[in-house]
This record gives sequence, structure tokens and C-alpha cells, in this order.
Amino acid sequence: MIRNPIKWPNNARCACAITFDMDADSLIHISKPADSHNRLYPISMGKYGPEVAVPRILDTYKRLGLKQSFFVPGWCIEQYPAAVEAMLAGGHEVGHHGYLHEDPTRHPHSEQIEWFDKAMEAHARVGNSPKGYRAPVYNITQGVIDLLIERGFDYDSSLMGDDIPYMMDTDQGSLVEVPVHWGTDDWPPFAHYEEIGYMMPVKAPSVGLGAFFEEFDAHYTAGGFWHCIWHPFLTGRLARWHQVEQWLEKILSSHDVWFATLGEINAHIREQASQAESVIRRDKLPYYETPPSVIAKKEIS
Amino acid sequence: MIRNPIKWPNNARCACAITFDMDADSLIHISKPADSHNRLYPISMGKYGPEVAVPRILDTYKRLGLKQSFFVPGWCIEQYPAAVEAMLAGGHEVGHHGYLHEDPTRHPHSEQIEWFDKAMEAHARVGNSPKGYRAPVYNITQGVIDLLIERGFDYDSSLMGDDIPYMMDTDQGSLVEVPVHWGTDDWPPFAHYEEIGYMMPVKAPSVGLGAFFEEFDAHYTAGGFWHCIWHPFLTGRLARWHQVEQWLEKILSSHDVWFATLGEINAHIREQASQAESVIRRDKLPYYETPPSVIAKKEIS
Amino acid sequence: MIRNPIKWPNNARCACAITFDMDADSLIHISKPADSHNRLYPISMGKYGPEVAVPRILDTYKRLGLKQSFFVPGWCIEQYPAAVEAMLAGGHEVGHHGYLHEDPTRHPHSEQIEWFDKAMEAHARVGNSPKGYRAPVYNITQGVIDLLIERGFDYDSSLMGDDIPYMMDTDQGSLVEVPVHWGTDDWPPFAHYEEIGYMMPVKAPSVGLGAFFEEFDAHYTAGGFWHCIWHPFLTGRLARWHQVEQWLEKILSSHDVWFATLGEINAHIREQASQAESVIRRDKLPYYETPPSVIAKKEIS
Amino acid sequence: MIRNPIKWPNNARCACAITFDMDADSLIHISKPADSHNRLYPISMGKYGPEVAVPRILDTYKRLGLKQSFFVPGWCIEQYPAAVEAMLAGGHEVGHHGYLHEDPTRHPHSEQIEWFDKAMEAHARVGNSPKGYRAPVYNITQGVIDLLIERGFDYDSSLMGDDIPYMMDTDQGSLVEVPVHWGTDDWPPFAHYEEIGYMMPVKAPSVGLGAFFEEFDAHYTAGGFWHCIWHPFLTGRLARWHQVEQWLEKILSSHDVWFATLGEINAHIREQASQAESVIRRDKLPYYETPPSVIAKKEIS
Repeated sequence: MIRNPIKWPNNARCACAITFDMDADSLIHISKPADSHNRLYPISMGKYGPEVAVPRILDTYKRLGLKQSFFVPGWCIEQYPAAVEAMLAGGHEVGHHGYLHEDPTRHPHSEQIEWFDKAMEAHARVGNSPKGYRAPVYNITQGVIDLLIERGFDYDSSLMGDDIPYMMDTDQGSLVEVPVHWGTDDWPPFAHYEEIGYMMPVKAPSVGLGAFFEEFDAHYTAGGFWHCIWHPFLTGRLARWHQVEQWLEKILSSHDVWFATLGEINAHIREQASQAESVIRRDKLPYYETPPSVIAKKEIS
Repeated sequence: MIRNPIKWPNNARCACAITFDMDADSLIHISKPADSHNRLYPISMGKYGPEVAVPRILDTYKRLGLKQSFFVPGWCIEQYPAAVEAMLAGGHEVGHHGYLHEDPTRHPHSEQIEWFDKAMEAHARVGNSPKGYRAPVYNITQGVIDLLIERGFDYDSSLMGDDIPYMMDTDQGSLVEVPVHWGTDDWPPFAHYEEIGYMMPVKAPSVGLGAFFEEFDAHYTAGGFWHCIWHPFLTGRLARWHQVEQWLEKILSSHDVWFATLGEINAHIREQASQAESVIRRDKLPYYETPPSVIAKKEIS
Repeated sequence: MIRNPIKWPNNARCACAITFDMDADSLIHISKPADSHNRLYPISMGKYGPEVAVPRILDTYKRLGLKQSFFVPGWCIEQYPAAVEAMLAGGHEVGHHGYLHEDPTRHPHSEQIEWFDKAMEAHARVGNSPKGYRAPVYNITQGVIDLLIERGFDYDSSLMGDDIPYMMDTDQGSLVEVPVHWGTDDWPPFAHYEEIGYMMPVKAPSVGLGAFFEEFDAHYTAGGFWHCIWHPFLTGRLARWHQVEQWLEKILSSHDVWFATLGEINAHIREQASQAESVIRRDKLPYYETPPSVIAKKEIS
Repeated sequence: MIRNPIKWPNNARCACAITFDMDADSLIHISKPADSHNRLYPISMGKYGPEVAVPRILDTYKRLGLKQSFFVPGWCIEQYPAAVEAMLAGGHEVGHHGYLHEDPTRHPHSEQIEWFDKAMEAHARVGNSPKGYRAPVYNITQGVIDLLIERGFDYDSSLMGDDIPYMMDTDQGSLVEVPVHWGTDDWPPFAHYEEIGYMMPVKAPSVGLGAFFEEFDAHYTAGGFWHCIWHPFLTGRLARWHQVEQWLEKILSSHDVWFATLGEINAHIREQASQAESVIRRDKLPYYETPPSVIAKKEIS
């Protein structure tokens, strides 16, 4: 199933990472800037993340001995420092996730840099120096890729180009890509958020999570990389996390898996890529300088 | 799973509340004000609530000895007094749910007060004096929070900030919040309502309800609070309620649960919160005075 | 579960009706009038109904000895006379379903009458004189109710006011209402039709049909009325109808059911309603003369 | 279940075809022409098709001895020649699928011809001469039908008029139609693509694929034609293809099926249709010269 299977540390059969994007109520503020402060229902839905779900998730991780990655917008660090400090105190990784969950494709690049650096300041204030990035709504641009390299980042985790991590090379430098996928993202099964135009029929915990667990089964069989992209206010809800915790206990006690932060995975990929007979895939960026459709139309007419 | 579990009356393992919002045909009237009177299909879909589903639900509650809460817009009380009088006669609670299911975020606050008080008059006419509130489409604002406190209300039930009830304190006074959640709301699995822009793929009764029952299992295990937000015209339909009734009979005869009205839950929370070693969470409101995104943008540019 | 259960003929435990709305490609023509003739994919999707599904459905009905009701827009009778003639030859009922599946709430009433009578002419041309009506997209208006009574119709089947049939009385006369419900309509589980703005995630045959069969189980237990609203181009597809046929064989050989046309059900309801101790519910129409929300707003401001 | 069952080669009980439309990132370029080159997430989601999924699919086909059909836009051939050359080298068929996945109903016919021929050039450059066509988003027009006949094509595969292949005759010539269906298309269960306005709740692999496998069961029982319309970036994902491969192994070793390219199916249909007692259905096109609704309106007013 996988053409270039990566040899994982200690010969583990499958690498695993649960990443949580702790967006809290940034989503409603960026979407409804005129009166978001007065929309208490989406605010409360978001606040559930740092205030209820994150402590629960960290408890589980501590009990099971897991270190995992979180991605947190800068504004959320400022608003909910306790949640982020608890992540760091627990030995987890906190990555860059924009400032107010702003979509990079919707702002001029100069403004994007301002948001980016403003987020860096928020990280710095809690003593964090992120080396990994995930674009809000996955919408990374070539400009942000270049910025990450310029700012000394190690990896991105916003793209869907493969099942397993790969290198992205530009003329200025390289990033590891730790790829994501809609099949292990918890928005489709669990998010119901009319204010931001995202209305999914909410699935039962066992149905929504069952899809993710099927993905694990396939990756375990293939020696791949099981990577979940979850959100505290969705998968951190009581009934869902209850099932996740039970499943984690079962897997950890019966399967040969390597759970790691994306930072650790990045380091492993870089180490593998540096070897003579590396199987790590290398992509060359930018993919396109201009939109291909424009070229096509010009050639035709 | 729960950091601050609440001790329930008689040491019940789990508190339970099924709340029904009896919106009847208010939804089509507020959405299509120009010709709603001539849209007989959505009118009939809504009328099914007070005329068919509510008597059915009340029969079940009577047979099983349950007292539960309903939320009813003032206009629906005026249109369907028999249904509301039957609720009250059965010892159930009838809470405030706006006048014509108007969304508080879509009207100026002065107008919102008029709707609010007009609804109070409708309650008064059937001898009811509501002390609990649920905002239409959950969209409570800070202005309505303040109004509830001013009008002497005990609790709100529109927010998603926790799994279990908590206190919301303002400088003017406090409310108990009895939180809701999309995972136990029956709109996502069962509502199909093109006229109001809400089109979900209708789930089988066992599939839609199965999600709610999974939520119960998790809350029962954790000693939490299982709270369903249902609607007579959806979950009160024959095949769905048939399954709910069977499930209720099973749970009541085999599990140690406390089914209560939200008013009773409010009283219990207030009693617990008044004790010296209270574990009841306290939130301070307002959360924000202005939209954070505006602040962020100002700081950047 | 049912407050006023109807005594069915021969003491059958449950009345059953599968109604098929044979809309064929009328849907694309009414939705995209400018270039519908050139949209071959939705045309072919619709034509599958009269050309492939209806013969299949009629074969099954014949083999199992069932007479059922179809609703067909007048234009579809003109385009696909063979399919409609086969329905009539098989002893089935063909009801009125508009002319080109036009939504009655979107046209002035005078125009609606023209469409209505134009459809009557199409029925007459195949020797049919419909006495039952179902509004396209269920959107019957008070004007159409009045028109049905004026034109001597017996029943309507567009509303959701109850689980079992009921009478609708106006000052000019009465109609039987044979109610419908989204829980037994095949659009939510099976329709995927971007051109008309209706995009559902298509369910597996067993999942979509399973929901309908659960509805049957509840109605059978309660002595009610199981009424499916299906479409040849959806439920008449091979894999779905294969499962329906197998299920019908099972039910007919093991359950005490009365399968009937809506015309027969109408006659039974009228007979029951004429008895001294009738339990048949009677609704008084019109429900409203003007939109209630307007009244409400006037009273407030 | 099938009125005119086709006798398949070697008396196989069921004909089967898995067709993959390899659209790669053409979808984002045609949808967001202004800045598609900078939308790296949808680009990477699309590139997964030719770069990861197609090699995987071809491996499976090779191991199982299957030859199947792919449809590839011309631009994708230019961008990903290796993937298309591997298809051809493996003995698979590569059909015409437009140039940049342009919807034929959205362009004037003269422009459509330019796109069409530009795609032909791309095919020619990899030594391919397509004889089959599938319209992007199935939106074939009468103009394209005529063009296919003019250009000497054998078949189309964009319409839903039957369960099994049929002939489409025009005054200028004939095409075989190898029909498609939403029930075996992988967009409804698996696609989640906000940028192009297609947001489905992603199903678990076993749930989405289970629907397709139920379709197989019915077609196998009926002696029909099981035809899947899949996309490498959706069904070619690791966990989904893992389940497909296991299912294919089971079916091939235990069922009497004829897996073929659409070109082979076309040839079989033409051979059958040429026989004296042919059961092959023949449709006459064009279906309509003008939109029927316009005619209807004219007649009324």
C-alpha cells in the first residue's frame, strides 16, 4: 500500500500522532468581527476547549505517558494562558496556528506577516518557540512556506500530498511536511457551526471516531502514519473523549506503535532523509508561479 | 472525565433532563413573514408538536412518573394553550423561549426587551411565571443575560461552556447555566427544513437516538449530566418516541439516575454553590466588552 | 402512541401505502428553464423513472398483488404516456401532482389555476380523472386547498399534521388529508442533485431503506399508518428496489397489513368519519388569514 | 429486476467496471482561476491522485490481472505524464475528460470545441487516442454528443438513463452509453472540498464503500452491470483502497464476474446490438430541441 515505507524508531509498525488545534473562540471573532463579543453561544462552545477539554486531554496523556502536539492561535494563548502553560508543562509541543485563526489566502502577504509575527510574540510570552506550523483551515500559501523557512521553522502540517511525511524543498531551504487528511479530521463528523457556514450532521461518537479507528487499522497494516487532526471543543467533549481514551488504552497495550509529537516526527524524517539510501520523498516548491487556468485560457483564445 | 463532579441528590450516579422546545409553527412565521400563513406544509409540520407529539410525550412522562422542562415561545402559548396547560397540569416546568422564536442577535436590544416582555404576558395568561430561559437558536446575548438577572430569572440554558451546570456571575447578579450541546440536540439528526435553510440528511430513528444514548452512557459512567434538547415535531414523531419510551423504561428500571426539571437542577446547583467547599464552577461575565478581532486589527495596523 | 387509532378494514393491524411521485425530468426543466433541454445528465437521471424504474415497480406490484398510488405531473403524462398507461392498466391510482412540478408558493394563484387545469387535461387524455392531489415539494397553499374542493377532489397528501389520516374542513367543503413525513421520504437519503440545490450524502440502500423499515415497525406496533413518499428515479434504482422487494415479500407473508391506494384510504376515512362515534380528527382551515408575525410586530411597535 | 438483461462474455453473471477520473488539481484551477496557484492545500489534495494513489491502484490491478478505464483531463496528462504513461503501459484505457475539467454547460459551444481539441492534443502527446468520453461533472450537452460522433468516438459515460449500457442514436451516428449513477460515485461519501462548494460529511471507509458493495450484490443477483465512478484522491487513499483491494480479492476468487474496460464493454454492446434479436435498448437523441418549460409557459399565457 505504501511505495516508500519509512522505517520508524525501534522498528515500530506504525507512527501515530494526535494533533489538537485549540482554536477556542477565535473562530467566531474572525468570522463575525462586528458583534462576535455578543454571540455567547459560539463563544462558550469555543471556550469549552481550553477550559474543559484541554485539562481532560492532558490528564489522559499524562496517565498514558503520551507527549503530543497542539496548534494554538496566538490570540488563544493570550486569552487562555493556563491551558497552553499546562500543555508545555506536560512536555507537549505547541505549534504555530496563526494569530486569530486568519485564513492566509484571504489577506495580502504583508498583513499575513504581521499576523504571523504577532502570534510569535504570544508564543514567546509563555516561553514557547514554535518550530512547526499548521495553517488555519489548512490554507497555507507559497508566501507562508517561504516565511516559515525564513523564520527557521522545521515543518509544516497543512497539506494532503501523501500518507506519510515528506520533504518540501525550495530554493531557499526545506521543510518537512507532516500531512493531514479529511478522513482523520474531526470537523466533518462533529462540527455544527452555522455562524461560520459549516453545518454537518453530527455523528454519534462511535460512528465519527470509528472512521478514524478504521484509518488506524489500515495504517497499522501498511506500516504507515496515523495522524488525527482534532479540536478540543469537538473530540474533547465528554462522550467522545471517553471512547478515545478507551481505544488508546487498548492500542497502547496491544499494538507496536510510536506515538510522537510532530516535532519528533520531523526530526526522524530529517535524519532519515539525510541518509544515503533515503526513501523519503522530496517535493519541489513552488508548485506553480501563476494559475494554470489562466495560461490555458490564453493559449486557447 | 469530569474535574469537578457534582454530588447529585440521593447520590444518584447521573443527573438527567430531557428538555423539549415546543416551537410549533413559529419558525416559519419568523422566517417567511411575508406569506408564512400560506405555507401549509411547514405550518402542519410545526403544529404536529402541540397537537400530536406533546400529548404523547406527556402520556409517557405520566406513566413513568417523570417531571421535565419545556421551553415555549409566547406566541405558541397563545396559539396552543391546551398543550401548555397540559404541561403545567402535569407538574412540568415551562420556561421562557422568546415570543416568536426571534433570534436575539438579530434585533436591537430595545426591541428584544419588547419581545421578552410580550412573552412574559403570554406565560402569565396561562398562570405561568417562568424562572428559566433558553434563547431561540441558542443565541443569547449579554443584553439578555442582564435582562434575565433584572427580571429575577434563576437560570439560562443556551450555552455550551461545560458538560455540567455552572454559575455565571455578573456585577448585577448570578444565573445558573444548564448547558446544552449539539451532540444531544435533535436538529442535526432529524430536521429537514428548506424554508429556514436547515437541510440535514434525516437519520433513522435508531441511528439518531443512538447518538444520544451513547452520550448517556458516557455521562452515566462519569457521574455527569445527560441533557437532551429535543423538539416535539422531531423527536416526538411516532417511530422516534416509540424508541425513546422503550429506552426510558429500560434506564429507569436499571440505572441510578436523577431525572429532574431544569428548575430543580438550578435549585440543586445553587444549594451546592452556597456551601463552603463548593466544586461548582463560576464564570465571570461579560466575556468581552467589544469584539477581540477589532482590537487585534487595531494593534496590527 | 396514537391517541385516536383508526380501525382498519378487516381489522388489519396497520395501513400501508407506498406512493411514488413520478417527476421524471420535470425537475430540471422547472429549475433551469433557460437551457434545461441541453442538460442531458439530469434529464437522463429523471427519464430513468418512467423508462426503467416504473416498469420494474409495476412488475413487483403485479407479482405481489398490490395496488398503489402514483402522483404524476401533467407534463410527465404527456411525455411518458406509456408509463402512466401501464400504471392505470395495472389498476393503480394516478393522482394530480401539478403540471411541471411547479411550486404553488412561487406563482400567483391565477397562474396556479392555469397550471392545475392544464394538468387535468393531460390526465384526461390518458382517461384518468384524479381525485387526489400532492403538491410539488409539498407546498400546498390555502388557495390550492380551496381549488381542490371546488374541483371536487377527495383528498390531499402534502401535509405533516399527524401520523394518521384526518379531515380538513373549510366553509366550502372538506378534504381528507393523507399525511406525509420526511422520515419516509426518499429525497433525504438518496437525492444528490446540484442543479436544483439539493445535495444530500447518498446513503447505502440498506441504510436509507432501513430508516423507512424502522418507521414501519413502530407504526405496526402502534396500529398506525405507514406511508412512504418515494420517487422512481431514486428508490426505483436497481439495488434499492431489490431490497424493497425482498422486504415487501417478507412483510406481506408474515404481517397483518392493509396495503391500499390513497383513494381507498380516503374512502375508508370518510366512511369512518361519517359514523356517530368517529375518532377521526377534524382540522378547521384556513389556519391563518394573514402572517402571524406581522400581527405580532404591529402589536409591539 | 432488469427487463432486457445483456448476455455477457463467457456467460459471466455480472459485468464490472471501476472507472477512475484522475482530475488531480484541475478542480481548484478551474474553480479559483485568480489565485489557484497559491492554494496549496487543494493542490496537494489533488496531486495525491497521480503521485500516490494511481501507482497504488495500478499495483493492485497488476497483481489481480485487471485492465480498467481511467478518464483524465488533458491538462492533467500534461502535468502528470508519468501517471498516465503508467496507465497506458499497464494496458488500461485512458478516456477523454475535458481539458481542465471544464463544465460543458458553462461555456459556449465554440469554446467547448477548443477545449476538447486541446485535450486531444494532450492525449496524442502520450500516444493515446481516446475513443470514450466522460463529461466533467457529468454535464454532457447535445453539442458534445454531436462532437463525439463527429470525432469518431465510440462511447460516452456521463448519463444515468439505465442500469446497463444502451445505444444513443442521432441522425449523424450512434454512441454507446455506459451509464453512471450517484450510488456508486465516491464524491458523496468522501469529498469535502469547500473551495468548490462541495461539502459532504466524510463517511468511514467501510460505510462509504459498503454502499458500493451493496450495489454490486444487487447487480450480481440481477445479472447487471456494476460500474463505479471513483477518483484517485478519494477512493485511492490508503485506508479506503486497502478495503477495496481486500474486497476485490474476495469477489474475483468467488464470483463469476467480467471486469472490463469501458472500451471493451462498448465493443460488446455494439456486437450485441448488431445481432438480429438484440435486446440492447436504443435511445433517440436529441431529447429536446428547446426547454419544455418555455413551451409550457407559452401555451399557458
